[in-house]
Amino acid sequence: MPEVVLEKLDEAECLRLIASGGIGRLVYAGRYDLTVLPVNYKFHDGAILFRTEHDSATDEDLRTGISHAEYRVAFEVDQFDVEAREGWSVLLQGPAHHLVAEEERSAAQAVGVEPWAGGPRDHFISITPARVTGRRIRRVPTAADSRS
Amino acid sequence: MPEVVLEKLDEAECLRLIASGGIGRLVYAGRYDLTVLPVNYKFHDGAILFRTEHDSATDEDLRTGISHAEYRVAFEVDQFDVEAREGWSVLLQGPAHHLVAEEERSAAQAVGVEPWAGGPRDHFISITPARVTGRRIRRVPTAADSRS
Repeated sequence: MPEVVLEKLDEAECLRLIASGGIGRLVYAGRYDLTVLPVNYKFHDGAILFRTEHDSATDEDLRTGISHAEYRVAFEVDQFDVEAREGWSVLLQGPAHHLVAEEERSAAQAVGVEPWAGGPRDHFISITPARVTGRRIRRVPTAADSRS
Repeated sequence: MPEVVLEKLDEAECLRLIASGGIGRLVYAGRYDLTVLPVNYKFHDGAILFRTEHDSATDEDLRTGISHAEYRVAFEVDQFDVEAREGWSVLLQGPAHHLVAEEERSAAQAVGVEPWAGGPRDHFISITPARVTGRRIRRVPTAADSRS
């Protein structure tokens, strides 16, 4: 039986794993309690970047109602190999920043993040993480395995 | 270009999609803010069932400190086809119930849910959802596609 190794990943390794973008999960405490919303994201300039529909539930839920005060959210990315029972997960925690200024918006547009759902979804949100943590689980052959 | 269809899933369809078990994501507001922890789960008797280590951070975070008062959590399961840009996600919200009574624990043991991380992890937690919601995104050929 291979031995299970559960390791904590350092921040650099976490950021390397999520750098290629793809599907991640936005987590926030919304009007319907804890909510998880998969979104297509890019990682650019140290931040998670994704798009939602303007005035969508997500957009509204992520506003504090206080100008310039930002809403704390979490963002999770993972990858698992179900057959090998191996994989990793990365958790980013930080404020959700709404891109309102025109220069911010056009810089984000240039990154080319596409929402799968299509439609206008012209509201950009970025998360610059205050805390990045990750774990990896893998299986390594034991001495007994290599003898057999 | 195929047309994007974003649909809400009813509860029966959500439960059908998650019934086979596998990897899901436990979401809770822990001591380090919003936290997401992928776990291997089974769906049994209307509830999500998984195991953690006794006295682990997860176990502690999910206790309210008030006997019999349960901690509200969310549990998310999804599946995406990155090439087709299609997929679904299901969100369950409800209290995290710690299986303490011997008969509950042996019933859970019989379900055979295995934590990937191995080790003792003999603490069972179940979530009987108070609310189940889901969404699916798919692409259907338009009339123009079928003509070409």
